[in-house]
Amino acid sequence: MTQNSFFDVAGIGNAIVDVIAPVDDGFLLKHNIAKGVMTLIDEFRARQLYEAFEERQEIGGGSVANSMAGLASLGGKGLFVGKVKDDRLGASFAASMRDTGVRFTTRFAEGGPSTACSLIAVTPDGHRSMNTYLGASREIAPRDVDENEIASAQVFYIEGYLWDAPEAKAAIVKCIAAAKSAKRKVALALSDPFCVSRWRGEFKAMLKNSLDIVFANEAEIKSLFEVETFDEALQALRDWPGIAALTRSEKGCVVARGKEVHVVDAAPAARVVDTTGAGDQYAAGFLYALTRGKSLGDCGRLGGIAAAEVISHYGARPEVSLRTLAADVGLL
Amino acid sequence: MTQNSFFDVAGIGNAIVDVIAPVDDGFLLKHNIAKGVMTLIDEFRARQLYEAFEERQEIGGGSVANSMAGLASLGGKGLFVGKVKDDRLGASFAASMRDTGVRFTTRFAEGGPSTACSLIAVTPDGHRSMNTYLGASREIAPRDVDENEIASAQVFYIEGYLWDAPEAKAAIVKCIAAAKSAKRKVALALSDPFCVSRWRGEFKAMLKNSLDIVFANEAEIKSLFEVETFDEALQALRDWPGIAALTRSEKGCVVARGKEVHVVDAAPAARVVDTTGAGDQYAAGFLYALTRGKSLGDCGRLGGIAAAEVISHYGARPEVSLRTLAADVGLL
Repeated sequence: MTQNSFFDVAGIGNAIVDVIAPVDDGFLLKHNIAKGVMTLIDEFRARQLYEAFEERQEIGGGSVANSMAGLASLGGKGLFVGKVKDDRLGASFAASMRDTGVRFTTRFAEGGPSTACSLIAVTPDGHRSMNTYLGASREIAPRDVDENEIASAQVFYIEGYLWDAPEAKAAIVKCIAAAKSAKRKVALALSDPFCVSRWRGEFKAMLKNSLDIVFANEAEIKSLFEVETFDEALQALRDWPGIAALTRSEKGCVVARGKEVHVVDAAPAARVVDTTGAGDQYAAGFLYALTRGKSLGDCGRLGGIAAAEVISHYGARPEVSLRTLAADVGLL
Repeated sequence: MTQNSFFDVAGIGNAIVDVIAPVDDGFLLKHNIAKGVMTLIDEFRARQLYEAFEERQEIGGGSVANSMAGLASLGGKGLFVGKVKDDRLGASFAASMRDTGVRFTTRFAEGGPSTACSLIAVTPDGHRSMNTYLGASREIAPRDVDENEIASAQVFYIEGYLWDAPEAKAAIVKCIAAAKSAKRKVALALSDPFCVSRWRGEFKAMLKNSLDIVFANEAEIKSLFEVETFDEALQALRDWPGIAALTRSEKGCVVARGKEVHVVDAAPAARVVDTTGAGDQYAAGFLYALTRGKSLGDCGRLGGIAAAEVISHYGARPEVSLRTLAADVGLL
């Protein structure tokens, strides 16, 4: 990776406050919540669900924002770009980023929709069903990004969810141009199989033209290539020169760069409480290791260790120092 | 693959009658049986265990012999070379090969040790602990192999267990030379992690000099390269130009040819009763598909289907037509 970078990773994503509540399957049925996926909702439904939740916990969230928090927990230097409103949840989001040590200076919106929130219903099997009101996070626009800052990071990291926010694409195009001209890497997380089916054509074009790294779970990569088996998706990537980091839950991950393929087993998890953030923390571990010049196999291993930590408790951000966990297995 | 071959696969292996009995873990402890592996025993201990077994079932066995039976069940044409004595178990072995349609014409030994048997203790978790008396099977020698027959098969297939029989090696050297000069493929199954540790140096030399295809489960390939993780073993094979078919039980298989890597999920098994023969039938399905010009991914898939059938019942050979199963999923 290029030297003399100020940040390890600059990420752009939806700035969301997670509102997490343990529920049973009956709650999902009663409130017509699709299990295990992310559904976009409006402000009215967000208020309804918020009130229906008992024992709710509020915490800074958003996929790339979570990854940046994980990167910081590993000792990496991260920048986050995302939009909140100047309201209670917006202040809460900014405080949560500041607490992790991630740089977050995007200007708050003064009017318009409220700060985004994701109402996450966690069932006893550890699956999470996310109901996301994008609110202010959709308002991210080219004027919110500083090309010099983006170009000062080794990796520019994007979440697929941003495609649901129209102006965000223009901001991303501007950032990619800045990253590319500084010879930085560009990484995309596919985010969700439905997100992939909404934006398949654009994601495939990015894969071909702009991306150096793609993160996807099994459902997402199968959706991208419209194939039925994991191996078909892997073969579809065989001639792609970038790095594919493909997560498979308890089956671990497969990391491929062209014809270099690593099959890495899952790190042992103390318990599975809530899988929210597993993919986000995997990306954090992976990108941290990559920016430290580790082998692709070790990038996958550190990703797995970060994911195993986050699924052992509620919430999408690490509760213990990932740096300590990484040091324990000789991966720093 | 080369055309105009008379056999699809010519296999050489220990000609063994399996004596299978369901036991509990207490039985293993009482009789000092190492769980889940193959242990070599002498004739005295073979008789002892034989008598301790209740509900025993006798059936033709031996790793490569099982694979040839599976190949025949798929509609493939197989030749088996192996040594039995002219005794009751020897006749039983020959009959079991004849019943499958595999050609088996190796001359019976008239004197010397009895026909080999493997006393297989199957615990309720489906694991099998094999206690093998090699007897007459060790007597296989160069004079028992017909070079023209070997050279008439697309693939010459060897089991690693044969390294425990001294004269067998000379027979194998003769067969490899015949296969190579006819431009046929040479395949080796590593057989067992302890077998690998006994013969690691010779197996590695074969990998370098003679083999086109290697079959191994995870423990075997890790033992071969003396590494701790599956991925390290996979990376150790990265520059090898042959085909590695690596089985991982419920994790499916990884098939690699140089830098072409397939990650194939396990076929769904109706139930797991007895894992005896899973590797043998995997090789049968894999080699059948290979001799029919299928892709490496499809070779792995057909191997997985054959393995899923054999673990759903006691015994190491298919109980239903593998050809029908393969046709059902469009893999013929």
